[in-house]
Amino acid sequence: MKLATLKNNTRDGQLVVVSKDLTRYCSADNIAPTLQAALDDWAQCAPKLAALYRDVEHQVVPCERFHEHDAHSPLPRAYQWADGSAYINHVELVRKARGAEVPESFYNDPLMYQGGSDAFLAPRDPIPLGDPKWGCDMEGEVAVITDDVPAGISERDAAKHIKLVMLVNDVSLRGLIPGELAKGFGFFQSKPPSAFSPVCVTPDELGDAWKDNLIHLPLIVDYNGEAFGRANAGADATFSLAKLVSHAAKTRPLCAGSIIGSGTVSNQDENGGAGKPVNEGGLGYSCIAEIRMIETIRDGEAKTPFMVAGDTVKVEMLDREGQSIFGAIDQTVEGV
Amino acid sequence: MKLATLKNNTRDGQLVVVSKDLTRYCSADNIAPTLQAALDDWAQCAPKLAALYRDVEHQVVPCERFHEHDAHSPLPRAYQWADGSAYINHVELVRKARGAEVPESFYNDPLMYQGGSDAFLAPRDPIPLGDPKWGCDMEGEVAVITDDVPAGISERDAAKHIKLVMLVNDVSLRGLIPGELAKGFGFFQSKPPSAFSPVCVTPDELGDAWKDNLIHLPLIVDYNGEAFGRANAGADATFSLAKLVSHAAKTRPLCAGSIIGSGTVSNQDENGGAGKPVNEGGLGYSCIAEIRMIETIRDGEAKTPFMVAGDTVKVEMLDREGQSIFGAIDQTVEGV
Repeated sequence: MKLATLKNNTRDGQLVVVSKDLTRYCSADNIAPTLQAALDDWAQCAPKLAALYRDVEHQVVPCERFHEHDAHSPLPRAYQWADGSAYINHVELVRKARGAEVPESFYNDPLMYQGGSDAFLAPRDPIPLGDPKWGCDMEGEVAVITDDVPAGISERDAAKHIKLVMLVNDVSLRGLIPGELAKGFGFFQSKPPSAFSPVCVTPDELGDAWKDNLIHLPLIVDYNGEAFGRANAGADATFSLAKLVSHAAKTRPLCAGSIIGSGTVSNQDENGGAGKPVNEGGLGYSCIAEIRMIETIRDGEAKTPFMVAGDTVKVEMLDREGQSIFGAIDQTVEGV
Repeated sequence: MKLATLKNNTRDGQLVVVSKDLTRYCSADNIAPTLQAALDDWAQCAPKLAALYRDVEHQVVPCERFHEHDAHSPLPRAYQWADGSAYINHVELVRKARGAEVPESFYNDPLMYQGGSDAFLAPRDPIPLGDPKWGCDMEGEVAVITDDVPAGISERDAAKHIKLVMLVNDVSLRGLIPGELAKGFGFFQSKPPSAFSPVCVTPDELGDAWKDNLIHLPLIVDYNGEAFGRANAGADATFSLAKLVSHAAKTRPLCAGSIIGSGTVSNQDENGGAGKPVNEGGLGYSCIAEIRMIETIRDGEAKTPFMVAGDTVKVEMLDREGQSIFGAIDQTVEGV
């Protein structure tokens, strides 16, 4: 099934069931008022939501026209947002640009940071930017929402707790990252609010594209209207999304509604090298930092600037019939 | 006023108003069902809660007996928990033990990490410990709860957004910290769920002990029934709690119900040296790591082990009349 949260002037919005083709919706108010409420009681709510989804698909319930720009992020605020780094190519690129090795442990112990989850952006909201020097970047990623996950769970059992899947633009302020990481406590000011796709879906909606707890489809990232990234989220993943859930739950349980991210989707070239830009026949990048690394490695200096007011980023994923699965994150940077 | 959240078999518990002496409570259900709901609409709810508090104090509303062990953490789960490091003595001690300098920037740019906020422990809950080698430690701290805080706010204006104050035991797994910080993304597995005091209070409840956005009272930390820490939370603070709120909000707004922590309360000796243990006439420590550092500096090796199953920690603060302000966090480590 497909779910969304419509803006309704409340903090948590209104839960709706959306048709597979994203054209219609029906309120889920009589099942759960919000997505968090549904996740809090998922075993009871999920079958009812699935039944309503069947009715929406068969057009046997009254539906309204679904407009992606009316949607908030599926969880407008969440109790947890933890972002991993499944695509080690991204990490290798960052390190290569500054001549550093990737520690061996990174290949079996995922990187993960605790992100701010108290106030996400809606998928069509502007990205507010206080200072262009902060180096605003997008990061196109996949994310999952879990139900309650017990502490110490295995990767295999963690897979059963992945209830919903969506896309994310993990906004990053690259100019603030070096100073903040040097302090040793991880990201904070360098990770302003992220935005999620207008629609989240149960893994079964992905058909055989959902395999080994990854989505085997290209993540479409367009920057200022041009193709920027087409990396396949099923390729070059060192860790599955289930592994990341298991990593997050090693020493503590995860509350229903926890969002776990994949990290920036990133593919190597066919020959195992760092990927080429889309306009040179490559799969491109899901963030600006990567193309800047490629430029630094190749030309000695980064040429592509970070985002400034007016720049636009679109993140989307199409099924094998070319239909948008999650709707599009489509944001414009706005000076504040 | 004083507020608490009683366990009632729901995820967010029941909001109650507690008498100043912590003996009685009255349900706030007709004002807001949960503390988060009250914070979501604080401007409307706060005056009503304050009026109910006056009625509780004057015994003109029916009250029940308040038992601290019935209380959950004031916010059993929150949309944000960000922990600062106001007491640089703690940071200096950690660094001194390993022969490292404290960077000059630490004296004007607070350290802060994004903590997990999806499932806190109740103040009398056991601390589950999966492996003694993880090096379980307590950290006694002060924390504030904010209403909605706009991005980019000054320290001065941030002070107005501090709505409630409480204590916290920020449980840390010291054995996992070096490996995790070496990865560069900050704490994650090394910070399992924290517990907060049974009661949170508005700053005016602290009288003149609330000054410059700090609590000028000793934080009482008892370990296995013996005095372990008596550091004054108003002394040796490099940053005020308002400064920490302002730091958290530099690049993003904070949602109502955000919890910002002070970091481990830590005092220097009168002569400016690292503090002495309580049984040697000093003010002691609010975490085991500090006494281990003192032992390392003084004796060449740490002698006090980290907590194992059966160890108990109590964190409390008394007003100048010797009355408990927030009730006590009182936890026993439990092997799981």
